[in-house]
Amino acid sequence: MEEIKDEVLNLLKTKKIQELTNIIKTCNPADIASLFNELSSEEDIVILFRILPKEIAAETFVAMDSDMEEILIKAFNDKELKAVLDELYVDDAVDIIEEMPANVVKRILKNTDNETREEINKILKYPKDSAGSIMTVEYVSLKPEMTIKEAFERIRKIGVDKETIYICYVTDIDRKLLGLVSVRTLLLAEEHKKIKDVMNTHIISVNTLEDKEKVARKFDKYDYLALPVVDNENRLVGIVTVDDAMDVIREENTEDFEKMAGMNPSEETYFKTSVWKHSKNRIIWLLFLMISATLTGGIITKYENAFTSIPLLVSFIPMLMDTGGNCGSQTSTMIIRGLALEEIKLKDWFKAIFKEIRIALIVGIVLAIVNGIRIQIMYHDIKLAIVLGASLIGTVILAKVLGCVLPMIAKKLKLDPAIMAAPLITTIVDTCSVFIYFNIAMAIFNL
Amino acid sequence: MEEIKDEVLNLLKTKKIQELTNIIKTCNPADIASLFNELSSEEDIVILFRILPKEIAAETFVAMDSDMEEILIKAFNDKELKAVLDELYVDDAVDIIEEMPANVVKRILKNTDNETREEINKILKYPKDSAGSIMTVEYVSLKPEMTIKEAFERIRKIGVDKETIYICYVTDIDRKLLGLVSVRTLLLAEEHKKIKDVMNTHIISVNTLEDKEKVARKFDKYDYLALPVVDNENRLVGIVTVDDAMDVIREENTEDFEKMAGMNPSEETYFKTSVWKHSKNRIIWLLFLMISATLTGGIITKYENAFTSIPLLVSFIPMLMDTGGNCGSQTSTMIIRGLALEEIKLKDWFKAIFKEIRIALIVGIVLAIVNGIRIQIMYHDIKLAIVLGASLIGTVILAKVLGCVLPMIAKKLKLDPAIMAAPLITTIVDTCSVFIYFNIAMAIFNL
Repeated sequence: MEEIKDEVLNLLKTKKIQELTNIIKTCNPADIASLFNELSSEEDIVILFRILPKEIAAETFVAMDSDMEEILIKAFNDKELKAVLDELYVDDAVDIIEEMPANVVKRILKNTDNETREEINKILKYPKDSAGSIMTVEYVSLKPEMTIKEAFERIRKIGVDKETIYICYVTDIDRKLLGLVSVRTLLLAEEHKKIKDVMNTHIISVNTLEDKEKVARKFDKYDYLALPVVDNENRLVGIVTVDDAMDVIREENTEDFEKMAGMNPSEETYFKTSVWKHSKNRIIWLLFLMISATLTGGIITKYENAFTSIPLLVSFIPMLMDTGGNCGSQTSTMIIRGLALEEIKLKDWFKAIFKEIRIALIVGIVLAIVNGIRIQIMYHDIKLAIVLGASLIGTVILAKVLGCVLPMIAKKLKLDPAIMAAPLITTIVDTCSVFIYFNIAMAIFNL
Repeated sequence: MEEIKDEVLNLLKTKKIQELTNIIKTCNPADIASLFNELSSEEDIVILFRILPKEIAAETFVAMDSDMEEILIKAFNDKELKAVLDELYVDDAVDIIEEMPANVVKRILKNTDNETREEINKILKYPKDSAGSIMTVEYVSLKPEMTIKEAFERIRKIGVDKETIYICYVTDIDRKLLGLVSVRTLLLAEEHKKIKDVMNTHIISVNTLEDKEKVARKFDKYDYLALPVVDNENRLVGIVTVDDAMDVIREENTEDFEKMAGMNPSEETYFKTSVWKHSKNRIIWLLFLMISATLTGGIITKYENAFTSIPLLVSFIPMLMDTGGNCGSQTSTMIIRGLALEEIKLKDWFKAIFKEIRIALIVGIVLAIVNGIRIQIMYHDIKLAIVLGASLIGTVILAKVLGCVLPMIAKKLKLDPAIMAAPLITTIVDTCSVFIYFNIAMAIFNL
């Protein structure tokens, strides 16, 4: 793609529209969408979009960043806007609408037909992060009494507008979900058979209000291409397809990475987010953690006598703090990820803590020994080695237990476990480790 | 699923096989596989597996943990083993073989037919983490001169054994990839048309040696159900399906989380990994970071005079260290994730650093002001407020620049950027921030 980028930019600059059209129509919509990011003038953006063949224009539009979409919508006349909108799947239209300012949304809704508008409004009403908000209503439904031949006729007739035709849903007259049948099954069965005889009735479905991350994880577990979304009366209201599930997984993972590093998640990519927005996302946690860290400072001042009589004690504070933070961060990362993938369940809390304590003992003792040898070599002070060894073991156990317990408590309280990650745990462990350290030191050195 | 779990365990204990069979056959293979994890005796494991209907036995087997698979393979007689193996897709068989000890592998290969054994060996030869290692060779291939009617006949004849039939690949007599056609296109086109007239020739394919994470990200970008894998001569050798791509994405994300918390990635889930293995995965980084942190300690001892004359200075060390660590961790997380998703490219290095410096200035100044107010209120010492303000701003800028640059350097050196995450950056920033802090303090307090 990189190779043809410069060529496209050049042809665009020299207005060689015919050559440009020839190149563009061999490209994939997702690649064309990335090309748009390289354009700086609104004029070029509009020119390039207008030369796209109709069948790839809509797909390209969907794959663009939202600010690019906004520029285009504003440049479109009503007829052009309608042409693009007519080609969109309803769930993609909803995604676009959610990113647009109110006046653009108004224009979009004005230019969609009544039926689509109603469907868009229905999806917009579902809570953010619910299965309903990411579903599409464009699925193929079949009736149980149809023959396979009739089913194929129906698929041929209505399939062109549907997001997937490979899984078809069998419903009764009340739209209640009875079963599902794949095109593979249809192709491999005899034509005269009835749908009800070949359909799969052991259906995994999700409720409209189910959390979208949970829905996405189901795709991972069951390897489906689509999952039916039903309301509380088991009526089929839409489907979620695997490509939407992949988007959700990417977004949720990015959100977890950001939360676990003490940031509010950003909606946009790194470069699309402004310096102000980045600063705002980061400053709240930094302020909170900075103020919490003064607690550790407060504890240190209590032991002024200890470190003015043995100044060397101060020099081990960073090592202790860092080790505690790293140990807590390791454990909390394992637990948070395990909870997200449902490999660790809340009922396993005791098993997890017991495991972490054993790991902490092994790790703590190894660190204490290595550190003890270093101190013996450098300072020939066995007492100091014992103080640090004991503090290290205590800190490691504490860090690993907290790293294990806090994400689980968050989950229990229906908070996102990802907030109980390295930054917060480090700050808590710091305070405790300094306290442990100076108390052991005072006891052993009789200060 | 949780509801029927206890029932199944009970029926198994009381050996009510008929009732058990009735319940089990309504379940999904992925759910049955999780049920096996609840069984503790090998006898129960084998009994439960033997009552599975043939058509779901193989799917359940594939969804199990590898230690469960090993127990079963060892308990199978050759006939049972062959029955399961015959139902497996080649790529799943390869996944299983990769986890088994040598003697089990030998038995598996002995019980597969020649053709499959050859295919398995072919896939096993591709490097770990390559597209070749995750592909399947069970795809539908069509010839350009076929009519759509003939294509459907072929799909009906050979489709039952193929991992996906929804995307078919058009090849010439030398197996060179000419185009692809979806079943959707086939269904919507007229029967007498030729494949070459309806096939899509703008193919996105991947090379056998391409990194599997890159391959998986292509699914996310292009929303495909399958991608063709070709050799250096553009000959089709296999396909990767979207469910395999989702597995890769899950594994790669978990690996990044673990590396970013300073751990060697583990192959198994949290509870399946032994305490020893967990300790081993964690101790290397901890040792390395502990020893590096003594450098910070060494710097502190150089300023013994400073903090014995103003002991209060010591109490701000944790706050400075934590803030530096948190800032570095925020930035490195954004950069590492951006590089993984290809939202940030190496050529953007200057843009990224410039952005981070501006963010660091805003964030640093806010932190310095808040901290300055606190110090004024608590200690009425404007000099101290200035020392800490300047140190904070310096530390934040340094942390954010390092958090930005180090992952990019790792990428440039073809290392995994995820190793340049919070733990390492925290340790480096600690050392520098303590140095900055004491030097500013000595200058302002004339120590």
